[in-house]
Order: sequence, then C-alpha cells, then structure tokens
Amino acid sequence: MSRPTAPIVLLTDFGAGDWYAGVLKGVLLERAPGATLVDLSHAVPPGDVRTGAFVLENAWRWFPSGSVFLVVVDPGVGTKRRPLAVRAEERFFVGPDNGVLTPAIAVAGAEVRRIDPAAVPVESVSPTFHGRDLFAPAAALLHGGTALDSLGPEVTDPARLGPEALLVSQHRLVGHIIYVDRFGNCISDIPGDALLSFLAEGEAAPRVSVGSLVIEGLVLAYGEAGEAEACALIGSSGRLEIALRGGDARQRFGLAVGQTVEVQRGGS
Amino acid sequence: MSRPTAPIVLLTDFGAGDWYAGVLKGVLLERAPGATLVDLSHAVPPGDVRTGAFVLENAWRWFPSGSVFLVVVDPGVGTKRRPLAVRAEERFFVGPDNGVLTPAIAVAGAEVRRIDPAAVPVESVSPTFHGRDLFAPAAALLHGGTALDSLGPEVTDPARLGPEALLVSQHRLVGHIIYVDRFGNCISDIPGDALLSFLAEGEAAPRVSVGSLVIEGLVLAYGEAGEAEACALIGSSGRLEIALRGGDARQRFGLAVGQTVEVQRGGS
Amino acid sequence: MSRPTAPIVLLTDFGAGDWYAGVLKGVLLERAPGATLVDLSHAVPPGDVRTGAFVLENAWRWFPSGSVFLVVVDPGVGTKRRPLAVRAEERFFVGPDNGVLTPAIAVAGAEVRRIDPAAVPVESVSPTFHGRDLFAPAAALLHGGTALDSLGPEVTDPARLGPEALLVSQHRLVGHIIYVDRFGNCISDIPGDALLSFLAEGEAAPRVSVGSLVIEGLVLAYGEAGEAEACALIGSSGRLEIALRGGDARQRFGLAVGQTVEVQRGGS
Repeated sequence: MSRPTAPIVLLTDFGAGDWYAGVLKGVLLERAPGATLVDLSHAVPPGDVRTGAFVLENAWRWFPSGSVFLVVVDPGVGTKRRPLAVRAEERFFVGPDNGVLTPAIAVAGAEVRRIDPAAVPVESVSPTFHGRDLFAPAAALLHGGTALDSLGPEVTDPARLGPEALLVSQHRLVGHIIYVDRFGNCISDIPGDALLSFLAEGEAAPRVSVGSLVIEGLVLAYGEAGEAEACALIGSSGRLEIALRGGDARQRFGLAVGQTVEVQRGGS
Repeated sequence: MSRPTAPIVLLTDFGAGDWYAGVLKGVLLERAPGATLVDLSHAVPPGDVRTGAFVLENAWRWFPSGSVFLVVVDPGVGTKRRPLAVRAEERFFVGPDNGVLTPAIAVAGAEVRRIDPAAVPVESVSPTFHGRDLFAPAAALLHGGTALDSLGPEVTDPARLGPEALLVSQHRLVGHIIYVDRFGNCISDIPGDALLSFLAEGEAAPRVSVGSLVIEGLVLAYGEAGEAEACALIGSSGRLEIALRGGDARQRFGLAVGQTVEVQRGGS
Repeated sequence: MSRPTAPIVLLTDFGAGDWYAGVLKGVLLERAPGATLVDLSHAVPPGDVRTGAFVLENAWRWFPSGSVFLVVVDPGVGTKRRPLAVRAEERFFVGPDNGVLTPAIAVAGAEVRRIDPAAVPVESVSPTFHGRDLFAPAAALLHGGTALDSLGPEVTDPARLGPEALLVSQHRLVGHIIYVDRFGNCISDIPGDALLSFLAEGEAAPRVSVGSLVIEGLVLAYGEAGEAEACALIGSSGRLEIALRGGDARQRFGLAVGQTVEVQRGGS
C-alpha cells in the first residue's frame, strides 16, 4: 500500500529551535534513503496531546495514500505507555498511546498495533527520546512497505480522547473554543453538520454568543463581513469559527480556548 | 519548461503553528507525487501583502527555472479578487490578485492568467481556503508541465503594488525603511544602483540619516564597522541597509518600518 | 563517498521570517537539482556560534553518510575569517572558520580545507551573504561528489571552541548549564560518561545542585519523577540534564545558561 513517493509527515511538539526534529529526519533518511519528508508542525505546545490530535485531524486526509505520519507528542516517554502503529484509510500513523492518534484510531476499520522494539529492530532505546529510537525507525519501515502486522500484536484498547460533549436543546447548541489559529480565528468544537441540522428548523439567522460578543447570522467567507467586524462561519476545518475581518478576533474580543460558544436558533 | 526536479516553493502568512501549510503540502504531493517542496517562508505577517511581495522579490531569481511559487497571502479570500497564475523568466507563480505577485508581474514579458476553477479541475472550492482548494492544485498542474494558457484567460490589469516613491533632489535622496530582518538590519526602499548614481557626483563620503541616527560613509560588509557601531551598506537584497555590527540596529536606535531614510551627498 | 540520496542539511541563524534560508535552498537546487534538503534549525540565536556548534554536535551523527551540512552562523561575514569545508566520518561540513564547525573538526581523522572561491566557481561573492554566494555552492559541489581536496588548500589551524572546563575533585564534579531546550530542560556540559565514572565510587545516590535547587539521585526518564517534581538525568544528548516532570524547569526554578551545576557523590 505504501508508495515510494508518498511522504513521511512529521508532527511534534519539538519546536523549531532545538535539534530534536532534525535528528528525527536524520534517522528517517538513514533508514528510508530518499524518502520525502514533510513538516506538518513542530509547534504543538509541549506535551499538549489534545492540540496535537486536533492538528492531525485537520490535516491527514489531505495527504496521499501511503503517507506515514510520525507523531511525537509524548509527555509520558519512558513510562509504560505503549508505542503504537496504526493504519487508517491507507495512511499509517506512528506515535505514543496517549490519545494523540485518536483521529486515526477513530476511523472505521482502523488497525492498531503495539510496536515491539524487537520487530523494528533497534539497537537500544533511550528512555527519553522514543521519537528517535523507536518511532522514527518504525515509520521508516512502514514507508518502505513493511506490513503493519509484523510490527507487533494488535491493540484493542488504545487511548482515545473523549468525544465532544455538545449540549443541544430545543433552542440552544452549546460548545467551546478549542483552538485559536495564527490569524486569531477562534475554532469551536461545534461541527458544521451538527450546526446546520440544528439550524435547519429555524426561520431566521442564528445568534452566536461567546463572552460578551454576540454575532447575528453566519457568513460564508471572512470577506463577507464588514471591515473590522466580527463574524461566525463554518471554517475550512469544518467547524463553527469566530473571526474578525482583517483582524485578530482573540485579541479584539478577549477570547480564549475553553470559552463557551452558544448558538441560538433564529426567531428563538 | 517545467523540469521534474524544479521545486514547488511555498510562501504564505500561515505561520508554523497551524495545519494550513501542512495541508497545502498534502494537496501538492497528492497531485504532484514526488515533487520537491521548499518552504520559503510562512512567517509573512497575517494579510501583509507588501511584506509577502518583498520576500518574494528577494528570493525568486535564486531558484532554478521551472520552479513554481505558491504564494498565499490572501486577506480577501472568498471575495471576488481573481486567482492568478503567472509566468516570468521561466518560473511560475500562483496566488491572489492583490499585488503580492507584483515582483513576477513587473518582469518584462510576464504572462498573467486568471485561474478558471473548471480548468484545474477541483471538486469544490471552500470560500475560506483557496490555497488548499485552488492555488495548490493549480501549482501542481504547472509543476507537472500543464501549459499556463490552459488555466484560464489572460489578465491585462493585474493588481500591482505601487512603485517606490523616492524623493531625489540635487543634494538629498529620501526613502523609507521597508523591512527589518531577524538580525535587526533595517532595509530601505533605496535601490543600490539609484544610490550609487546619486552619489557618483559627490566628492566625499555620504551622510545617511534616520531618526536621530547619523552615519557617515558606507561600508561594504558588516564586519568593517567598528564593534557595536552603526553602519550603512548596500545589503544582499541590493538596497541601502542600516545595520549595527554585532547587534540589532532596530532595537538599539529605535528604528521602525516606515521611517524616513535620508542620504546627503558628501560635501553637501 | 557522497550518495545521491543523502541530504544537504541546513543549520543557520537566519530565523524563519526572512528569505535568507529560502535563498540558500534556491541556490542549492539550482546547482544540485533534485537534492534532498533538510532544515536542521534556523533558530540559532543571531551570531551565536557556540549554540550553533552545540546543535550540530547533537545532530550530525544521526544523518546518513554522504550528508552535507551547510552551517551558516557567520557574524564575521565579509571579514578575513576563512571559509571552510570539512570531512569527518563520511559526512561533509561547510561553514565559516569561527568555531561553529568544532564538532566535525574535533573528530579524529577530520580533513579541513579552505574553500577557494575560484574552485567553486562563483561569479561574484557579496561581502554580506557568503551563505548564498560561497557556502551553498560549495555544499552543492560536495553533494554532487566533488572531491574535498579540490576545493582548496588544507587548513591545519581551524578555529575551535574551547573544551569544557569541568572541575572534578574527590567529592565534587562542577559544570554549567549550556543549553535550555523548548521544554525547559536545562542541559549541562557534564558528559554522561564523566558523571558515571565520577559516581562509580559513591555508595549512595548523588546530590545535584543548581542555584537553590537540590536534587537527590538520578532518574532514567522524565516520567520516573513525581508529578511536577524536579529530576536530574542523562538526557538524549548524553549529558546531565535538569528537568521538571510535566513542566518547564527553567521557568519554575529560575535557571539560566551559564549557571553552575554541582554534583556531590552520595555519602559525601
């Protein structure tokens, strides 16, 4: 299933300043000569498994089949958390068993294996850098066509991040801000399709509230809002998003991850 | 004209933290398997078309012929601004019609086309992420050798950023700081050749003034200045630059983009 | 010795915001079409030769043989410092003669050459950007298999950063914090093997002191420490490291590069 041209995609919390991401690339190129390496992000906040999973969720389907995702957001490195390899929709994923691989594990038909160091094989595994000593070598193997099931035994109970708890009543749909992007767009955990089916029965434009900010109606694009005006829309991640045309909604309105976002049906 | 080994070069305002640049790469590798991808910069300030154009101007000629530049600094995404594809000196450029492609469009013989979504083709174009849904697919086509003129009709009035308004009198040449780099070097809009022809008639070293800082004479390299001493030189971007040996001129002298830079002929 | 699939690895202080690193990549792909380029780091603090050397030291052995390291941390650009090309353990290194290449030069059997611009050849070398005009072209040559000794004469006295001055007495081993990584882990200049041989004679767990922080004993992995508890360990860089489980040791304990780290033998 692996294709020689499909990339190995790196997603870590290593930042840009240290040598850790670079060392992963060295190991990958030593074991998978000529592989195409792609940086998805190294800016996941240190140890922030939930943000790592959200970045992965928004990106992985856009990569070609055969792509291998090397995901190292691993605050429990050196403890007994299991190293995992996953196949979902013809892509492969390697990373720790702490929930960061939830977007792949949650896919129907996903296969999850525990990586056995003896199957990789590696000379020694340091207790502080499994990305280098275990995950990268496993990713190189999968990129080269090694069968997933040869890496270790099946895992039936991998860690998963909890599903979103949306509160939906007759008149209100309530979620939270879960991510703020570089532009200050505040992305909620309210999926676009849940929003649209909630709104389907309303007769007028919905009202979106977060903090003291109240927005009437949805727009399709940032540019539809008035200059320097707040707007709500279903963004490119497929979720309800609060934005400010030509500006930073987080800064302007003092928004933050975790804040409640409430939608009321028009006419309610 | 496209060569298989020539890269697709990404220049955006997406930052390093989100998944947007990663998603562009996924789309490119899906449609141009095995392509070499190069990050020029993702750190253009959000929506800052002028800075994006300046980074492009300083970089594009150093890439091999056949290179495709995917430029996404697109504050007007989802509005009626046109999507463009450009060919200039055997390189290709894809991006919005907002002036960010000026360095390519301004080249003699440049060919500018409006990208017709039907010609790409793409399944659907979201109103918030044309980089993913339109520009990246078009860049992949150009990289693969598709003819520019098959992408859409010619455009004769693309947006261009205004030319530099330098004030030149007998004794003074006046421009502005337009960019400050990571080292704190303050780059002006005064081209080196304009400066040299202005100075040609002078008999002594010129005087460069910005804010309360006055520098006598030009140097050829940062290292020629005294330790911790300000200097003026024609930098690697080919423009007059104010620098501080071993330090950050912006911080030390309180300089900023937009500030007036004045050159007086020696002996004036 | 060069293999077509081995990468050219970039390590600079150029940051992510400007076009300087992008221009290096353009020059490399112009002269070494199809080469694999890897960003090791562009976040070395401006002109910080010592940090650049430390990042290189921690990374280079993980890359495959034939890899070419293009190292541009070059505060003396345009002065008389020599441009160097080095071969060590089947990898190549190109950069300024200011100590940043110490990790390669210090290897037994390393060969060091001064790059002669006429041997590259380049049309012209600007006095402010040797990375673009000299080092990148030389790196492309080495990647393509050009013999090291054809680049210029041998250098027998390259600049080297001083060796670590560890103070070792019967009861105490004293070093310093030399690097703080993104996670706030504080890495010292005390090599793991020196530490272990010092400790070999002790009968109880050692005591590690830095500032007002005192840590009893070593752990093998961050996760072995109690939650939010400081620990000392030999990290993935092979040196004694002060860390805080689930947190940032630098911030929590007010640590900084240069601070003294003292180890006392258990029972002392």
